[in-house]
Amino acid sequence: MRDIAVFTGSAHPALAAEICEHLGVPLMPTKTSRFANDCIEVQLQGNCRERDVFLIQPLVPPVQENLVELLFMLDAARGASAGRITVVLPHYAYARSDKKDAPRISIGGRLVADLLQTAGAHRILAMTLHSPQVHGFFSVPVDHLHALRELAHHFRGYDLSNTVVVSPDLGNAKEAAAFARMLGIEVAAGAKQRYADDKVVISSVIGEVADRDVIILDDEIAKGSTVFELLGRLRERNTRSIRVACTHGLFAADAVQRLSAEKDVEEIVCTNTVPIPAANRTDKLTVLSVAPALAEAMRRIHNGESVSALFA
Amino acid sequence: MRDIAVFTGSAHPALAAEICEHLGVPLMPTKTSRFANDCIEVQLQGNCRERDVFLIQPLVPPVQENLVELLFMLDAARGASAGRITVVLPHYAYARSDKKDAPRISIGGRLVADLLQTAGAHRILAMTLHSPQVHGFFSVPVDHLHALRELAHHFRGYDLSNTVVVSPDLGNAKEAAAFARMLGIEVAAGAKQRYADDKVVISSVIGEVADRDVIILDDEIAKGSTVFELLGRLRERNTRSIRVACTHGLFAADAVQRLSAEKDVEEIVCTNTVPIPAANRTDKLTVLSVAPALAEAMRRIHNGESVSALFA
Amino acid sequence: MRDIAVFTGSAHPALAAEICEHLGVPLMPTKTSRFANDCIEVQLQGNCRERDVFLIQPLVPPVQENLVELLFMLDAARGASAGRITVVLPHYAYARSDKKDAPRISIGGRLVADLLQTAGAHRILAMTLHSPQVHGFFSVPVDHLHALRELAHHFRGYDLSNTVVVSPDLGNAKEAAAFARMLGIEVAAGAKQRYADDKVVISSVIGEVADRDVIILDDEIAKGSTVFELLGRLRERNTRSIRVACTHGLFAADAVQRLSAEKDVEEIVCTNTVPIPAANRTDKLTVLSVAPALAEAMRRIHNGESVSALFA
Amino acid sequence: MRDIAVFTGSAHPALAAEICEHLGVPLMPTKTSRFANDCIEVQLQGNCRERDVFLIQPLVPPVQENLVELLFMLDAARGASAGRITVVLPHYAYARSDKKDAPRISIGGRLVADLLQTAGAHRILAMTLHSPQVHGFFSVPVDHLHALRELAHHFRGYDLSNTVVVSPDLGNAKEAAAFARMLGIEVAAGAKQRYADDKVVISSVIGEVADRDVIILDDEIAKGSTVFELLGRLRERNTRSIRVACTHGLFAADAVQRLSAEKDVEEIVCTNTVPIPAANRTDKLTVLSVAPALAEAMRRIHNGESVSALFA
Amino acid sequence: MRDIAVFTGSAHPALAAEICEHLGVPLMPTKTSRFANDCIEVQLQGNCRERDVFLIQPLVPPVQENLVELLFMLDAARGASAGRITVVLPHYAYARSDKKDAPRISIGGRLVADLLQTAGAHRILAMTLHSPQVHGFFSVPVDHLHALRELAHHFRGYDLSNTVVVSPDLGNAKEAAAFARMLGIEVAAGAKQRYADDKVVISSVIGEVADRDVIILDDEIAKGSTVFELLGRLRERNTRSIRVACTHGLFAADAVQRLSAEKDVEEIVCTNTVPIPAANRTDKLTVLSVAPALAEAMRRIHNGESVSALFA
Amino acid sequence: MRDIAVFTGSAHPALAAEICEHLGVPLMPTKTSRFANDCIEVQLQGNCRERDVFLIQPLVPPVQENLVELLFMLDAARGASAGRITVVLPHYAYARSDKKDAPRISIGGRLVADLLQTAGAHRILAMTLHSPQVHGFFSVPVDHLHALRELAHHFRGYDLSNTVVVSPDLGNAKEAAAFARMLGIEVAAGAKQRYADDKVVISSVIGEVADRDVIILDDEIAKGSTVFELLGRLRERNTRSIRVACTHGLFAADAVQRLSAEKDVEEIVCTNTVPIPAANRTDKLTVLSVAPALAEAMRRIHNGESVSALFA
Repeated sequence: MRDIAVFTGSAHPALAAEICEHLGVPLMPTKTSRFANDCIEVQLQGNCRERDVFLIQPLVPPVQENLVELLFMLDAARGASAGRITVVLPHYAYARSDKKDAPRISIGGRLVADLLQTAGAHRILAMTLHSPQVHGFFSVPVDHLHALRELAHHFRGYDLSNTVVVSPDLGNAKEAAAFARMLGIEVAAGAKQRYADDKVVISSVIGEVADRDVIILDDEIAKGSTVFELLGRLRERNTRSIRVACTHGLFAADAVQRLSAEKDVEEIVCTNTVPIPAANRTDKLTVLSVAPALAEAMRRIHNGESVSALFA
Repeated sequence: MRDIAVFTGSAHPALAAEICEHLGVPLMPTKTSRFANDCIEVQLQGNCRERDVFLIQPLVPPVQENLVELLFMLDAARGASAGRITVVLPHYAYARSDKKDAPRISIGGRLVADLLQTAGAHRILAMTLHSPQVHGFFSVPVDHLHALRELAHHFRGYDLSNTVVVSPDLGNAKEAAAFARMLGIEVAAGAKQRYADDKVVISSVIGEVADRDVIILDDEIAKGSTVFELLGRLRERNTRSIRVACTHGLFAADAVQRLSAEKDVEEIVCTNTVPIPAANRTDKLTVLSVAPALAEAMRRIHNGESVSALFA
Repeated sequence: MRDIAVFTGSAHPALAAEICEHLGVPLMPTKTSRFANDCIEVQLQGNCRERDVFLIQPLVPPVQENLVELLFMLDAARGASAGRITVVLPHYAYARSDKKDAPRISIGGRLVADLLQTAGAHRILAMTLHSPQVHGFFSVPVDHLHALRELAHHFRGYDLSNTVVVSPDLGNAKEAAAFARMLGIEVAAGAKQRYADDKVVISSVIGEVADRDVIILDDEIAKGSTVFELLGRLRERNTRSIRVACTHGLFAADAVQRLSAEKDVEEIVCTNTVPIPAANRTDKLTVLSVAPALAEAMRRIHNGESVSALFA
Repeated sequence: MRDIAVFTGSAHPALAAEICEHLGVPLMPTKTSRFANDCIEVQLQGNCRERDVFLIQPLVPPVQENLVELLFMLDAARGASAGRITVVLPHYAYARSDKKDAPRISIGGRLVADLLQTAGAHRILAMTLHSPQVHGFFSVPVDHLHALRELAHHFRGYDLSNTVVVSPDLGNAKEAAAFARMLGIEVAAGAKQRYADDKVVISSVIGEVADRDVIILDDEIAKGSTVFELLGRLRERNTRSIRVACTHGLFAADAVQRLSAEKDVEEIVCTNTVPIPAANRTDKLTVLSVAPALAEAMRRIHNGESVSALFA
Repeated sequence: MRDIAVFTGSAHPALAAEICEHLGVPLMPTKTSRFANDCIEVQLQGNCRERDVFLIQPLVPPVQENLVELLFMLDAARGASAGRITVVLPHYAYARSDKKDAPRISIGGRLVADLLQTAGAHRILAMTLHSPQVHGFFSVPVDHLHALRELAHHFRGYDLSNTVVVSPDLGNAKEAAAFARMLGIEVAAGAKQRYADDKVVISSVIGEVADRDVIILDDEIAKGSTVFELLGRLRERNTRSIRVACTHGLFAADAVQRLSAEKDVEEIVCTNTVPIPAANRTDKLTVLSVAPALAEAMRRIHNGESVSALFA
Repeated sequence: MRDIAVFTGSAHPALAAEICEHLGVPLMPTKTSRFANDCIEVQLQGNCRERDVFLIQPLVPPVQENLVELLFMLDAARGASAGRITVVLPHYAYARSDKKDAPRISIGGRLVADLLQTAGAHRILAMTLHSPQVHGFFSVPVDHLHALRELAHHFRGYDLSNTVVVSPDLGNAKEAAAFARMLGIEVAAGAKQRYADDKVVISSVIGEVADRDVIILDDEIAKGSTVFELLGRLRERNTRSIRVACTHGLFAADAVQRLSAEKDVEEIVCTNTVPIPAANRTDKLTVLSVAPALAEAMRRIHNGESVSALFA
């Protein structure tokens, strides 16, 4: 395999630049034009021939624009005779569309996986997919990293003697349990029911939370409806303090500002899988970087070394 | 679409016969031969040309034999010019292999889905898949039935005023919660960790179970390690009575006999998605039939009617 | 083939409604939701099973949103067991991306054709593709209608004795020549060079235009840069009057208002392949409907009658 | 990628030999046998394993024989474990079949592209395709060279002060315009209509040709019907002198002899993308070699260098 | 499935006409044009939409021309929205290329099967394939007829009391044995070795042939080298009389005339799977028609009836 | 291509170990687990990334278990980013299912070839396939070795002056003839008819066997029904001595013990393509090793050297 060539789309150039710094390779420029008829054209501005090409593009809002741009980047790299094309997907928004919970809808996570392959993806490097089954939606090899290590490293800096990890959702409690084990503490979970995208009810919290320091852990926070609902239940149970942690800080509808305004929320922790605009960077927000982990995984992929060994 | 033609493999002819009785169509004979070199040959014994062919074969032990037989049935139907081929999979054993939880393993649920399509499957009729995401492993249309309706119908015959549904596993509690809602009762869940296929530890049960009548609900019971572990935790919490319910009663290693021998287990309820040998039919075992539900779904598939409408 | 089922996406519901009126069938409702993370979910709200499904969605701005919505509609129809799925593409914006005129770009017209097929399209009904070769980008059957008949019908209402059709571009003059033959008049063409999406130079006009009534014909008008450039050349040659005609009236950047403001432009004619917002409907604009033609083609496709025979 | 291995089919071994001379690699022998039942068998006579295999075969008459031979060469190379297989197509006859201009015909240029891929082609090196859209018919990477550079180099040797380039067809005038720009001169074009393969009418020539030295430029000359028709129109306009240039000199039906017999045709220039039999080598014919350009492109493909950079 | 539509290519229109007569349906006209550059264009001259299309084209000399024509017919039928496309292959010349007996050659029988599928074949109706394994080269359903019934019917008219069937080749003796069983007589076989396409040595004949009436049976006779070699061996063993029978009478290099000139060859029997030119119709040649068998198979395919049942 | 990595499945680890010894590379461990529901999970225990992976697994009894295990090994290697995956198939049991000799059965040899490719096989190394046409069932490159060299080497140690090779079946006599030529002796063959898997009748033996030393050669011996039937015919013809040779010694139903018990059978020779349990190793059995041949072929495949050259 010849030299590595790393390109970024429009979604998150800052993360791509940080990754390239860790890798010690230049970030190859990309030029995306938009025609008068709203069609886009993507040109990869660096030789791809026989190169080990990495395309960095989290699927974040505007999701449809970023997705189509990524598909065009893939096809362009293929047509330009790339030796191998790896999509680096720090955030895969459509991973949440992982089941058919209504008739005559698409399972978006599977469809988009198929589209990426049609456009030329040879492999995927993903981070904290919404459910582990999403891995199976891809028919190309997937390396799946988790940001729990980065989050755990952060929280180990605190006194955790009275702390419990709370998953807002029984259905997602597996990951919270793993996180709690990494920190050597206990876990609890909310019994969540979703009535609509922004209408969530948590009927009860099962597990001990009274008079505890709580770390709420979710994979992603968008509007934050779930977290706010959980805050209500926790207050009824008289928790002592609350910190909120997630991998993907999408923070739609001023979620981070509204969370920061809550007195008993001491800290909000996320990673930079998703770009965090300056307006969201409140005093309470801590953003951890996943660039070192992604860079190391890319280095190993390029060199044919085991990625799973690293994150064991 | 021309006439319906229903064939059964070796896995569960009794269920196939019961389905055909409900449909009012003959069960077409199949002949599976084994050569001296252990290869099999499958002959569908009825005209398939342009027919709407249904192949009924749950993937139950011996799983590999039944899987290869099904693949040969599919290829034979395709080579014989079937108009459309639907695989009726009352139990899909490999659905449990739905994630890559160790390096260099296969996601069996996805691989087998691909193999079925390679051999000629046009669509799938499945029941109570281990996780809803498994649906997305198939690139052909899937109709996914649940047996919760049958189970709920059975339990509605009891006094449920003091009853709670317990899921052995937080990660699977969603379905138990849905079942509890159908019965109008509460839900609890165990915090399970699996160390090996038959080594399970449930560290705690979250939710109210003391002095309650408990219905343990799982999608499948094989060796029963999980249920036995849960029984231990429940007894520590002084539950009043215990009933065990599941869709897929695999009952390996005398699981049903060992469960029946437990004094406080009053009843074990499963369905006939998996064949129940006579030896397993203890006094405490109740087997509900899914044949009417599968037959009705097949009728609707054949007629082009909505299947989701039925099970809404 | 069972009953026809027609769905529209968000791109142009008015055209879909008009088509269904001509067909005498109901327009089936579609529901597109957007989650907090900007992902969309599309639900086709009517039974698709074994139906002859038509999805009407021109690829117009916002192109990427409409494209992804269409891909989700296709996958949903396939997963819901549609008997056959025809995409009705009154306008295919990416048809203009039909060649690789720079290194390391994608041929968008081909890529999007492949994506549509990956998502489940069985056939395409298109109108006035930018070049006839685009037909070959699809590996599924394409019925390709032209709106020249509608345009010619309109212009036959005028005195054409002193009229000439002018193509802005030699490279596209074939269609203008065909249009001129339909009207029994002569053709001329500009020698166009495009320096950028909105930077066009026409060095000369070849053919007789002095003192003539001119009909400028193009397949699509977006910002109108080409037409304005041609107006300059024509005035130098002292044309008598000018009318502008196109199939796809995209009219970006106030193009229709700016054209209408030109004294010597007497009329602008387009069709409704693309939605025309009220703001664009100036006194000089005439919009012809392609709904009858599309409805008739859909009727013939459904009935297995020849579409080419109709438009011979 | 291991060593390069170049094979030629029966179509044009002389060009293949010349290319290999420029590359400094041996031309590997091929053996094509014909059985009594008219079937052919192709044996590549040199190790292909893991090699970077190039198969040189223009699709020239007998087109069907050469096409099938090429398909067999591809499959043989694949079965012999070639590392990568590039088809070098100096002439792609079926590129002219690029649209569906009658019902129930095939778009040959797309079909043959698909057949080449089915037989094992990984990439294509083509020259002067009939239209740039043909590039999009291939789903494998295509490097598309143009012979305009070679032709322009030749004509720069003449006094061009009074010269105009004439395209016989408005629909193809884009390439003539580019050629004219390379030479710094003007362009004109005929308004051509094709009534049958050998029945062409040019109703008029638009642009200044009277008293000019004319270079007629077409991509390919077969029977020459178009050029003869254009000669008639040009004489009516009193051109001063005429030279004819094309990339692909197919020269069917004594076209070169008949053209050479025309007094006012001073020279006929073509390249060796197509073999030129001795009988066609009249005094007026000049044949330019594309071997250096193809060899350089092959060298760059093998080395993973940019091909587009070369021909910018 | 809608109406049947039968088209013939150029290879054997007489057989197609005879088949249509038996079916009672019109033979739809096809128009194959050849351009000046030797490319062909095929137009199916009848509506294919949703029809059950049959394309009749034996692969006989000129094989490459007929093969490419068939591929274009397939693609045209697909592009014209045929409901189902069945290729009727009365003779499949490339079936003899069924193994890789030299390095770096193609297995032509498999490659051509793949090409037919790429071009759009949904199913195949073949006759007397060179080896039964060729069936497995196709991934679409194949109905495989044998002409032994027709041949046996003919020979039952003779006194067979002293007759033996002789296969020229041990490797092909299975079919001769089946034929002998149909006639209730014995079988013998030559030990053949092929040194080249037209260089065959039969070292011995195993089985009783002295003083017997011999029927030589082969699947196909091209140059007849094998049969002539066998004649030599049989004469050494003093056979009484000789008749020659085959399904596919290719008769290259005056084979039928040379065979007819042999005194002890009393009759040559073949079928019309391959067109027999007038020049080959010697007094000794008997041609049996397979049209009734092919027509009946097509009728059953169209109606969804069992084809195997017919020929059991 | 990076380093070689060789894994074995459960079918024949001893052969794999012997091959690795010849190659001088470690045999990478594999771990196959079986869950309570009879599903298996395969983990390749060594880094596969970008490696040249070889998976050694003859398809021997239990065939279905071994086949599914192999499919999982393939998918695991692919998912773990193997650079290239070669399946080493010393015995391919389903090669005998190479034709459709009954309606509505599968051609197993083709289906399993397709399944292997679906699961990720890039190439196949096979040994003594039941018929040469089976090669064509694979669409990936196949290297096909024969064990005749090993068998011939063994028999050259005997006095062969009065020896004849006898094929039990006319239909398979080609290989026996090749073997006889290698030894410089004559060949004879039985006229075999198979009425069922274990019901075989040989009506006669054609060729000289009386008073000869006979070597019976077959590709595989399972129950031995064919060989026992042939022994009967040979004794009637008063052969002098009998030795039995085959490549694949499956020896079902005590075949080797029963053959050893026959007085006039002096020796049974097979290879180790199939594991020979201790119980089968009678005094009369000689097992030749194919490990050196397979190892050399693997070495050549890895190095890109010609495999055919070796076995010419």
